[in-house]
Amino acid sequence: MIAPNSSNSSNRDLPIQKTVGHYLFDCLYQEGITDIFGVPGDYNFSLLDTLEKYKGIQFVNGRNELDSGYAADAYARLKGLAALITTFGVGEMSTCNSIAGANSENIPLIHIVGAPPSMAQQQHKLMHHTLMDGNYDVFRKVYEPITAYTAVLTPENATIEIPLAIQMAKEKKKPVYLMIAIDLVAKPIIQRFTQQPAPETTQPQSLQAAVDHAMQLLKQAQNAVVLVDVRAMRFHLEEPVLQLAEALTIPVATTLYGKGAFDESHPQFIGTYGGAFGRQEVRTAVERADCVIAIGLLWADSNTANFTARLDPLRLIQIQPDHVKIGVAEYPHIMAKDMLQALQRSGFRQRSPVIKGDFTYDALISEPDQLLTAATYYPRFQNMLKENDILVVETGTFYYGIGQVKLPRGTTVIAQGGWQSIGYATPATYGACIAAPRRRVLLFTGDGSLQLTVQEISSMLVHGCKPIIFVLNNQGYTIEKYLNVKTENQAYNRVPNWSYTKLAEAFGGDAFSISVRTNGELDDAIKRAETDCQARLCLIELIVEDAMDAPDYMQHMRQYLEKQEKLRHRE
Amino acid sequence: MIAPNSSNSSNRDLPIQKTVGHYLFDCLYQEGITDIFGVPGDYNFSLLDTLEKYKGIQFVNGRNELDSGYAADAYARLKGLAALITTFGVGEMSTCNSIAGANSENIPLIHIVGAPPSMAQQQHKLMHHTLMDGNYDVFRKVYEPITAYTAVLTPENATIEIPLAIQMAKEKKKPVYLMIAIDLVAKPIIQRFTQQPAPETTQPQSLQAAVDHAMQLLKQAQNAVVLVDVRAMRFHLEEPVLQLAEALTIPVATTLYGKGAFDESHPQFIGTYGGAFGRQEVRTAVERADCVIAIGLLWADSNTANFTARLDPLRLIQIQPDHVKIGVAEYPHIMAKDMLQALQRSGFRQRSPVIKGDFTYDALISEPDQLLTAATYYPRFQNMLKENDILVVETGTFYYGIGQVKLPRGTTVIAQGGWQSIGYATPATYGACIAAPRRRVLLFTGDGSLQLTVQEISSMLVHGCKPIIFVLNNQGYTIEKYLNVKTENQAYNRVPNWSYTKLAEAFGGDAFSISVRTNGELDDAIKRAETDCQARLCLIELIVEDAMDAPDYMQHMRQYLEKQEKLRHRE
Repeated sequence: MIAPNSSNSSNRDLPIQKTVGHYLFDCLYQEGITDIFGVPGDYNFSLLDTLEKYKGIQFVNGRNELDSGYAADAYARLKGLAALITTFGVGEMSTCNSIAGANSENIPLIHIVGAPPSMAQQQHKLMHHTLMDGNYDVFRKVYEPITAYTAVLTPENATIEIPLAIQMAKEKKKPVYLMIAIDLVAKPIIQRFTQQPAPETTQPQSLQAAVDHAMQLLKQAQNAVVLVDVRAMRFHLEEPVLQLAEALTIPVATTLYGKGAFDESHPQFIGTYGGAFGRQEVRTAVERADCVIAIGLLWADSNTANFTARLDPLRLIQIQPDHVKIGVAEYPHIMAKDMLQALQRSGFRQRSPVIKGDFTYDALISEPDQLLTAATYYPRFQNMLKENDILVVETGTFYYGIGQVKLPRGTTVIAQGGWQSIGYATPATYGACIAAPRRRVLLFTGDGSLQLTVQEISSMLVHGCKPIIFVLNNQGYTIEKYLNVKTENQAYNRVPNWSYTKLAEAFGGDAFSISVRTNGELDDAIKRAETDCQARLCLIELIVEDAMDAPDYMQHMRQYLEKQEKLRHRE
Repeated sequence: MIAPNSSNSSNRDLPIQKTVGHYLFDCLYQEGITDIFGVPGDYNFSLLDTLEKYKGIQFVNGRNELDSGYAADAYARLKGLAALITTFGVGEMSTCNSIAGANSENIPLIHIVGAPPSMAQQQHKLMHHTLMDGNYDVFRKVYEPITAYTAVLTPENATIEIPLAIQMAKEKKKPVYLMIAIDLVAKPIIQRFTQQPAPETTQPQSLQAAVDHAMQLLKQAQNAVVLVDVRAMRFHLEEPVLQLAEALTIPVATTLYGKGAFDESHPQFIGTYGGAFGRQEVRTAVERADCVIAIGLLWADSNTANFTARLDPLRLIQIQPDHVKIGVAEYPHIMAKDMLQALQRSGFRQRSPVIKGDFTYDALISEPDQLLTAATYYPRFQNMLKENDILVVETGTFYYGIGQVKLPRGTTVIAQGGWQSIGYATPATYGACIAAPRRRVLLFTGDGSLQLTVQEISSMLVHGCKPIIFVLNNQGYTIEKYLNVKTENQAYNRVPNWSYTKLAEAFGGDAFSISVRTNGELDDAIKRAETDCQARLCLIELIVEDAMDAPDYMQHMRQYLEKQEKLRHRE
């Protein structure tokens, strides 16, 4: 049978014949999970009752299921795997977005759903939280298109399905779905002996052919570049990528989605590659390189500055998690780590020096009475960052602005580059604080986005989380105003003007909350927050005068979109 | 072709060749829709831009998509149909719960999703808000199991698919899903001539047979009872049910889900039938009746007091929306309205008098200094209710307590009896206020539930909605504590203790907010709110000492569950 190698020793006082619930939590505990997110509901009581007695994993309540899913997503980014418990129907259907998002973003997440009693299911009784049609398979079917695996657990299949689901989540970096009837959680497992599918490994011939091909390209290269993208982070390739870059002495750029995948204080780092919207020096270095080694590349619209990025496929070595593509040739069954190591040991060494430019927000404009604009607050963020900070960045103007800020060593960026669901970042901050209680967590969110999931500020207050929260009050969905070049000043892009500094009090918690309008006020607020965040949550509201205030990157995006729109009208 | 009979005249200045978007809104406008709920996102800009220019329908922003779906659900309950606009992926996936809920609860709702440009879809480009696999059909597939119909709109099929989807929603009282690429909204429709499926009608032979069979039962009856359930409301049968009951002079009970389906001030009304948990007199009248005419009956767990309700199938005439069942015989293809009218005209008249009892909360305990308990606040709610009030009742202890309160004539109860998704009621109150701006709207919610969707208080403040909101602060998910008889005082059932009276201010709005702990304080607060609600939103927090404070009905439920649990252990 597939059994965990060692049981959590402090749970030895639990029944000798392990129950399905206990076995499930053992499997998760062995993966390093010490916290499970979710919301209680009557069909998951037996799961939560088991968890309440289980030593080593705590249940972390969210204010609603979508938020809990987002929190779990961020937790998985930091700890490698996360779990979420919801209740049948109403609970699980509330968090489809977080699961689809985890799918899109390559986040391994175990979603466990407590279901009605097995007898009620077998008899097709009309129970609450159902579609009132006696069908108990309908919500699993909803989840099939957006997860890597679904299973309905029983005492008979638990020892097969649970390890398999965890393996699928970890290998594919995707969410999986497990449903269990409330009455089966406390039933003893019936152990089955079965062979778990072997994890995918590299095919040596394929690897050799890919390395040979890559070396042909590299040997002729004078100014190769390494380009690190999001899947390098998701598949934990940061270390082998660093070793490769150092061994080959090739300069490194990251993409926007890949922000944080490479140490930005490293002498070989040249910046973030943002096609036509990003810095020109980086664009030149990447697009004129005679060879680009791209790791975990995702050729998506918002990662390639609306496909303005131009990489010559014939000069491109794409190392993907489970295959390699060079020019037009595809080499299947190659684990990225093996390819990176093989290249690292190839002996190739590039001689040309790394050309370095400034970062967009290196210049700090100090005038204290000046009103805040992107040009003045981004440099301040860059200035305050410390090694090992966690930056949770909301989809919106902040995502593109922070993408241009230089990060210290060891920082982690948590953001949904591709999925871009507004509202993600606040619950993700909660998840990050739970996953890494000793690291400083900074949240960068906008007024529009915060309003979707604001209640997780309450969860953070209750759980003693102490992030520094920056809320950009720019009177609406500014990102959306930038993206819509057909009409202007849309009423639908306005949001209510909240008193953000009063939120913590309304949520019954203690926080340092302040509104700032000028550079000087922001400087003071940051100074205060740097001390206060030792003791409590801090919330700094940045009020900007201009509702269209936005970083450089977005100005370029807007110009591009306007040009495209004009071209369309000329057609 | 299928074309609306008349176009919205004030939109005559729009282009003569109607666009898909304009046609869509024309169809919805003709159904009486004057407000569409939703959240903007870049793939629905063309829908919202069209709507912003469209006269007769306003776009009603929600703070997130789940909330907007809930609001639309309540709107449909009051106006017969509702529409919701979300954006591809992130938007639509956030509102699966509201759509599954509308399915479970028989609510007709048109969910319109703005999708990426058709060219990007055809080329399987990796666009933001996708699973990054080039698949543009995945979210429609997610919606298939939880909607009555899904379609992808084009200029070529719009005049077929839109009327068909609306017809399906209205006939089946279910949600439907329409997706449209952003670039196709402003394209002119290509008119198609096609025959829309004929609406289902009654088969005369089936009706005659059912009426004959019913009359056999009725003619022998001495103490028949009419039992009105939730689907009588959903299929708008209140009026024919009333006429039937009056013509036959049969006493009428409602179920818990059917609360509000029959005028409770009517001399023939005997009360709410709640099996073993409800009032004994009503139970006796219904279960000892020699014939029960049940309209729109839904035999679900929480509608039958955990299946303790006992109706002898041989004495039961079940009139369902599209069929009739008498004893074991099923009569298909009968529209409920036709069956009700046929029975009404049958000439049968019951002679036995209607036995009337008191309602559970008729007795008003006046002692002003006494701390609030269910026994003292429910009579106060009953007392303050006025004709034509709309009561939005959250799943939780309030649902069962309000189920025992006597309603004045013309009141509407909005609650999810079967789906029971906590968090529903606050956004539903928003939807109700938009749908019926001239009626008084009362929200009854708990602390736990409010926290899931609290931001819609902000939407209500911005839109000038003036409901009276009662928040029961009983320190957690009391309903869940009642339902879990296996463990006690679960940590997971606690919720943060908010300062509910400070919420409106944090949301930047003006409201009358007050906390009350005693009968006298509640009396004063209600008096004040009755005046203030003319001008602004009112929020009354009821703080109860006992976290297990709950209505009679739930005490009975708990006793029953404890007994069942003991029996299980004896097995």
